[in-house]
Amino acid sequence: MSRLVVPAGEGRGLRVAAGTTFSVVDVEGGQVGDLFAFCADAVGEYASAEHTRPAIGRLFPRPGQTVLTNRRRPILELLEDTSPGRHDTLYAACDPARYRLLGVDGAHRSCAQNLLEAMAELGVGDVHVPQPLNVFMDVRVETGGELVSRPASSTAGDRLLFRALLDCWVVLSSCPQDLVPISSGGITPLAIDSDG
Amino acid sequence: MSRLVVPAGEGRGLRVAAGTTFSVVDVEGGQVGDLFAFCADAVGEYASAEHTRPAIGRLFPRPGQTVLTNRRRPILELLEDTSPGRHDTLYAACDPARYRLLGVDGAHRSCAQNLLEAMAELGVGDVHVPQPLNVFMDVRVETGGELVSRPASSTAGDRLLFRALLDCWVVLSSCPQDLVPISSGGITPLAIDSDG
Repeated sequence: MSRLVVPAGEGRGLRVAAGTTFSVVDVEGGQVGDLFAFCADAVGEYASAEHTRPAIGRLFPRPGQTVLTNRRRPILELLEDTSPGRHDTLYAACDPARYRLLGVDGAHRSCAQNLLEAMAELGVGDVHVPQPLNVFMDVRVETGGELVSRPASSTAGDRLLFRALLDCWVVLSSCPQDLVPISSGGITPLAIDSDG
Repeated sequence: MSRLVVPAGEGRGLRVAAGTTFSVVDVEGGQVGDLFAFCADAVGEYASAEHTRPAIGRLFPRPGQTVLTNRRRPILELLEDTSPGRHDTLYAACDPARYRLLGVDGAHRSCAQNLLEAMAELGVGDVHVPQPLNVFMDVRVETGGELVSRPASSTAGDRLLFRALLDCWVVLSSCPQDLVPISSGGITPLAIDSDG
């Protein structure tokens, strides 16, 4: 097994072959990650929260359920989740515009740019920034449709185990959001453990 | 005031100037609509549910709140809502793949294709199909993140009044979904009433 470390606030990706498994690991605990998956041979097809939700009848898959692409093909299967199971598919990836609206004057890392940089590093351009699978991010929906965000409750070593169902690029961003308390205990690294 | 009728199961669009208002009308009641808005001069920027939700802290805006684009600029303001206020931003637009998965063998109209056809009719191509604002669609989120969809409770003449904050293309699809009971009482027309 090999570990791809995703440094705090940065993004990293790798190619995963159909049939193989990988884990998304919260190394130190309390860290939100933005997870993306793109079909290896046509990145216009990607893991899509909005196509997944109606198929599974949930905001986020539970173990045994699959993530669909924007063409409604299963791309990932969630096999295990050792975390408290709070994850989000409602918040867009943070991006420069988000930080400007939060009052940041200069540069600030973001999950959207982390994704584009990680894909560029893999030699892949022309990438849409989809709604991420926001792992370890605790957003709850109240009865009237209000959203309540709480700091991540995951602890060190918590992991989500996925199986790739299609050859894909998988990118994980350690969310650099430090102005809204979605991560707890600072911005810390994540990792992808894989068979590859 | 002029009325653009959206025939049952079809899509129609129009250009709306910044500052003007328009209403999305459930003509006969119980009909789900997929509403889209694209910046008139650059359709790569569009009304985005995933960028709107964190900004308003809700799944769907309430009157006085705005819809943001994928660049987090306000594009629409919801001014009034005479319906029971049940709307959705969680379900992707229905598309040919959705109907194939539901067992439809041949052709079936879909909101995704209705959008592309309406935009083509307006002379605009190269359009991404965003997560729609699913007006009059009643999807509720339970405590554990489960989604429960109920037939639309809107009645004849219910309307959502919006103000455009940017020059935009607005497209409305009368959702042709007749295999899952999201609309009630059959597939019926919608309309856009505008000052234009």
